[in-house]
Amino acid sequence: MDTWKAIDSIRVVREFADRPIAEDALNRILNAGRRAGSSKNLQRWRFIVVRDRERLKKLAHAGPFAAHIEGAALGIALVMPDPCAEGAPLSVVWDLGRAAQNMVLAAWELGIGSCPATVYDHAYVHELLRIPDDQHCEYVLSLGYPADPSVLQAPKRPGGRASLSEVLHEETW
Amino acid sequence: MDTWKAIDSIRVVREFADRPIAEDALNRILNAGRRAGSSKNLQRWRFIVVRDRERLKKLAHAGPFAAHIEGAALGIALVMPDPCAEGAPLSVVWDLGRAAQNMVLAAWELGIGSCPATVYDHAYVHELLRIPDDQHCEYVLSLGYPADPSVLQAPKRPGGRASLSEVLHEETW
Repeated sequence: MDTWKAIDSIRVVREFADRPIAEDALNRILNAGRRAGSSKNLQRWRFIVVRDRERLKKLAHAGPFAAHIEGAALGIALVMPDPCAEGAPLSVVWDLGRAAQNMVLAAWELGIGSCPATVYDHAYVHELLRIPDDQHCEYVLSLGYPADPSVLQAPKRPGGRASLSEVLHEETW
Repeated sequence: MDTWKAIDSIRVVREFADRPIAEDALNRILNAGRRAGSSKNLQRWRFIVVRDRERLKKLAHAGPFAAHIEGAALGIALVMPDPCAEGAPLSVVWDLGRAAQNMVLAAWELGIGSCPATVYDHAYVHELLRIPDDQHCEYVLSLGYPADPSVLQAPKRPGGRASLSEVLHEETW
């Protein structure tokens, strides 16, 4: 799938088919994240792949909008050094956003949908995934084949995004 | 270009050919950013396209590693609501990282290279680009055709990224 096509056609998938993601597909998705550029090439990210159904069910309670994790083929917890620590640079979060976008696009090319869930209950997730205290998990990506495969070819929702003229400035704000 | 190929082959370009980026290519790059998913679909981003050579030269002084902006075909200043404000969520920065990754991949597919520059002197950039006080510009993307087109087909640099086993955990950290 052409890069632009993936960027333009990707949409969030929250309902997943009961079909596992093969190892080679998962490896590609993980490598897409790993290959992302990062500030000073620091690669301050770790990926925790969760496939155990019981753990996914628990992870679905990480926040109010995380229920989709329960039915995902797998979840990838995206972990970074604590971005709220004194003096932590913004680039930790920015870099991880770039890595995540690589992952969801690589997945979409393979017909695999995804949805990021925001972690609200950090203590809960830290214990569940045994994340060290100096690390932080703000997002978990749900991944899986869409329950409704027609989403892969669905037209864009009208009004889903602001127009370019609303977000664009020329030369100065 | 296949999505995976773009993700796998993209590299940072800091030296640019003296060749403008056509409107349709720029529009695609900007739309790639605009189309990115964002937390609650809030799309908290603005893009300032800078093409004026004198302004690019000035923008190249935004930080110690921003010199590449001077020779870029254009720069895109990525602006978000102040992420350092009291109670600002991390998602503002994460979302913008996702949008930026869409932009650099869409550019790469068109043979256009890019490099993000971190802004260090925020007061300077705010004045230069007339950015409102409640907004924040942490990054400027340089974009242009590579001075050395062979970079588009160059092999990966060995050791450029940590191996997957170094960043991956299974089920728990």
